[in-house]
Amino acid sequence: MDSNVILYLLIIYFSVANIDAASKKNAFVGFANKFDHKKTFNRSTSSLSNSISRDECNLPDELTEEISRYKPIVEGIINASVNGIFKKRTWRTLARFVDKFGSRIAGSDNLENSIDYMVDLLKKNQLENVHTEPALVPKWVRGRESCWLVSPRLEKLSILGLGSSIGTPAKGITAHAVVVESFEELQKLGKVVEGKIVVFNEPFISYEKTVKYRGYGAIEAAKLGAVATLIRSVTPFSIDSPHTGWQHYQENVTQIPTAAISIEMAETLQRMYQAGDDILIYLYMEARNLPPVMSRNTVGEITGHQHPEKVVVVSGHLDSWDVGQGAMDDGGGAFISWNALALLKVLGLRPRRTLRSILWTAEEEGLVGAAAYFHDHRNNTAAFDFVMESDEGTFQPLGLSFSGSSEAGCILKEILKLMHPLNATQFASPMDGGPDIEFFTNIGIPGAALLNANERYFWYHHSNGDRMTVEDPTNLDMCTALWAASAFVVADLSIDMPR
Amino acid sequence: MDSNVILYLLIIYFSVANIDAASKKNAFVGFANKFDHKKTFNRSTSSLSNSISRDECNLPDELTEEISRYKPIVEGIINASVNGIFKKRTWRTLARFVDKFGSRIAGSDNLENSIDYMVDLLKKNQLENVHTEPALVPKWVRGRESCWLVSPRLEKLSILGLGSSIGTPAKGITAHAVVVESFEELQKLGKVVEGKIVVFNEPFISYEKTVKYRGYGAIEAAKLGAVATLIRSVTPFSIDSPHTGWQHYQENVTQIPTAAISIEMAETLQRMYQAGDDILIYLYMEARNLPPVMSRNTVGEITGHQHPEKVVVVSGHLDSWDVGQGAMDDGGGAFISWNALALLKVLGLRPRRTLRSILWTAEEEGLVGAAAYFHDHRNNTAAFDFVMESDEGTFQPLGLSFSGSSEAGCILKEILKLMHPLNATQFASPMDGGPDIEFFTNIGIPGAALLNANERYFWYHHSNGDRMTVEDPTNLDMCTALWAASAFVVADLSIDMPR
Repeated sequence: MDSNVILYLLIIYFSVANIDAASKKNAFVGFANKFDHKKTFNRSTSSLSNSISRDECNLPDELTEEISRYKPIVEGIINASVNGIFKKRTWRTLARFVDKFGSRIAGSDNLENSIDYMVDLLKKNQLENVHTEPALVPKWVRGRESCWLVSPRLEKLSILGLGSSIGTPAKGITAHAVVVESFEELQKLGKVVEGKIVVFNEPFISYEKTVKYRGYGAIEAAKLGAVATLIRSVTPFSIDSPHTGWQHYQENVTQIPTAAISIEMAETLQRMYQAGDDILIYLYMEARNLPPVMSRNTVGEITGHQHPEKVVVVSGHLDSWDVGQGAMDDGGGAFISWNALALLKVLGLRPRRTLRSILWTAEEEGLVGAAAYFHDHRNNTAAFDFVMESDEGTFQPLGLSFSGSSEAGCILKEILKLMHPLNATQFASPMDGGPDIEFFTNIGIPGAALLNANERYFWYHHSNGDRMTVEDPTNLDMCTALWAASAFVVADLSIDMPR
Repeated sequence: MDSNVILYLLIIYFSVANIDAASKKNAFVGFANKFDHKKTFNRSTSSLSNSISRDECNLPDELTEEISRYKPIVEGIINASVNGIFKKRTWRTLARFVDKFGSRIAGSDNLENSIDYMVDLLKKNQLENVHTEPALVPKWVRGRESCWLVSPRLEKLSILGLGSSIGTPAKGITAHAVVVESFEELQKLGKVVEGKIVVFNEPFISYEKTVKYRGYGAIEAAKLGAVATLIRSVTPFSIDSPHTGWQHYQENVTQIPTAAISIEMAETLQRMYQAGDDILIYLYMEARNLPPVMSRNTVGEITGHQHPEKVVVVSGHLDSWDVGQGAMDDGGGAFISWNALALLKVLGLRPRRTLRSILWTAEEEGLVGAAAYFHDHRNNTAAFDFVMESDEGTFQPLGLSFSGSSEAGCILKEILKLMHPLNATQFASPMDGGPDIEFFTNIGIPGAALLNANERYFWYHHSNGDRMTVEDPTNLDMCTALWAASAFVVADLSIDMPR
């Protein structure tokens, strides 16, 4: 650990807003609070309608012509990825990766070993300037957990403790339950909640509208004296499958254990409650928050031949939850990101600006790796020309969602026309599905996320079902192609992306 | 236990084909072998195309007119079920039932208690001649079970031991694994299999084509000296969700423990195997086959006013696997069957012939309850005019699938025209989804099963996902309506169903 790292640690600790010295041990909880969970950012306002309409675009003819001249290069990239030497390569490398390491939660040996593996792999694939950059990350450990319905009859529940939750006492918690559908219903119960386990059976509206129950359910229930909470998993579909995810505690509110249960069981408990059954539940969780540990963002590049100091970022996050394999969230995003560069390297395509693949760490705990990276590069943000991330699935690619200036949006639209062979020419705004790069887009750096046919994304998200079976080789090839081609053209344009 | 029951027990024991005295303790395994699993019967040859084409039907005008005169009655039944006094009633009664008892495997107190409850409920609903008829059923107990991938890395597998499987030794089985996609591949491995755990990663073609790996995988692997088998769950879709089901042992072949794993993990293990990884697996199962116990088929009627001795059977099975709630398989089928009669009773509709609702027991272990019932009524099969069962889901009803004489098929087609208000007029042949009543249709008694939009049936089948969430109140109302209306018309016709 050198002095830079120590300085970094100090900066991270004291740059966290709203966290006083007394709550330092909960710094990461506050940190997560500040940035909240990735998918809560823009989704509610995102749409496929163009915020920059076609009429508003009035690119100079020379620029339009310049972009159109990339057509044969883009076609070459697409061919190589979908039918050529990279055919099925993203799927194959991803499968080997997730099979070898399994899930990769922040703070785990699995994640750190997988980062070492990626550094080797990027080097083997001739990426340039391969290195890692440090980030201090939370270490939450699930331990064993179980939950039983004791009354009105005995049944084991499928549960997943929520990230950052504390455990139960060693003998578990046995308590009667109340079941509510909303925070409003909870408030109405008032004193009745005291000493009870609160079961939330909130209906699934959309991820961003429903996730507050996972994020803040334990706080609201604890305020009324609840001893634990069980949250209906935030998903539109279930085969008795619980979904984990980060949750928050609040200063001066008692921390209580909290876990996700399946849609099916939440509905069952609510029916029992409404029928007047006396519901008794036993909950046992060994979950613990350990001191934060060092992790790393993984970086590999193709150095620009004209403006090596200017950077186009192509990224996904390497960490995952500690269930399933993290193949979809976000193995796919990470693997199309480095494979895009590996493909360009094999094709001998070196753009004017530097292409930088970043595999973020500890996204799931509140964009922790990306926050550290942004912090470390905060005095050099002028260097970032364009930022890209894929973190909402790598199903069939449809195009890109974008945030940034109208001018940059118009350029991106023009570039997307080249993606016709992939049938992936859609442009949407604002950006949706690039949580880690929002540090950059929030200060006006233009950025894009992968638009893809991810209707079933939340079926698997943060569950044991996030495994390689979700990923399709051809879709991954197409995503890699779109990713490589659009990043290359942006990085090679005669002009910077306008802010 | 009276003398009739003892006689029945003797008959059941000695009527089982291919079981000699030495293997008597495995009588039920052989029994299941003989009749095999329900869905393997007709599905492969079933289609929505009419085996009896419209042109072949030439019903007498009087009969066509007679059937058409039921239009107002059918409409009344449909209205009462979908919009009237029975609106949401099937769903509500089913929800209360499955919430109260949970899963109901043969041999369990849960099942016997649920049968007592149904006897009371049928009586409360004014069904006539409510009683039970005995059946000796297998008692397989799962106990605790767990499975870990030990090498190349540690990961807990989601498993469900298969019905009739033995357990492992108390310390479990730890062995290296081989992975195959078919019995042919297994044969090619030959001696390599000795001492190994065989993992079957058979692709899902269709239930009836794929289920042989669940049914006979342990036998084929044991012949080559395997110590256990793990079978990819027989389903087209998974969220890391294992599916149980009955499996067979064979005389003179060593019995080895066998369990289902998820699609995802079967694929993972195969990729590891093909990559040359050394796969070590730990399997622990407490499963046991206990001596058979008495269970009961549950019967309730509306006695016919003209031919009380002639019977139209309306049925589903009350037992389920020991996972989930058995809401779909076959709570839905059982509950539309008795609710159909309850609805007719409330509407004061008493047909010429007797309508008999039968809630079968121990279907899952090889149609055991239905076999006993058929055996007990074998000298009186002339009394059975028509038999109906719903056991492949109660999703949106589409019509009926049929087996029997052309003449009976033509009559049923004519009756189905009356189901236009439900948009459920489809006729298919042969019958598919009435396993218990095939004892009757196999000897020429005409019968029908519910045709419904059950494309997702096998997503939940025999898994922890078979819960009330799968069932929709309106679909259930429509199924009850179709069931009640078609059974009533058949039972009330001036002529018997031609054989």
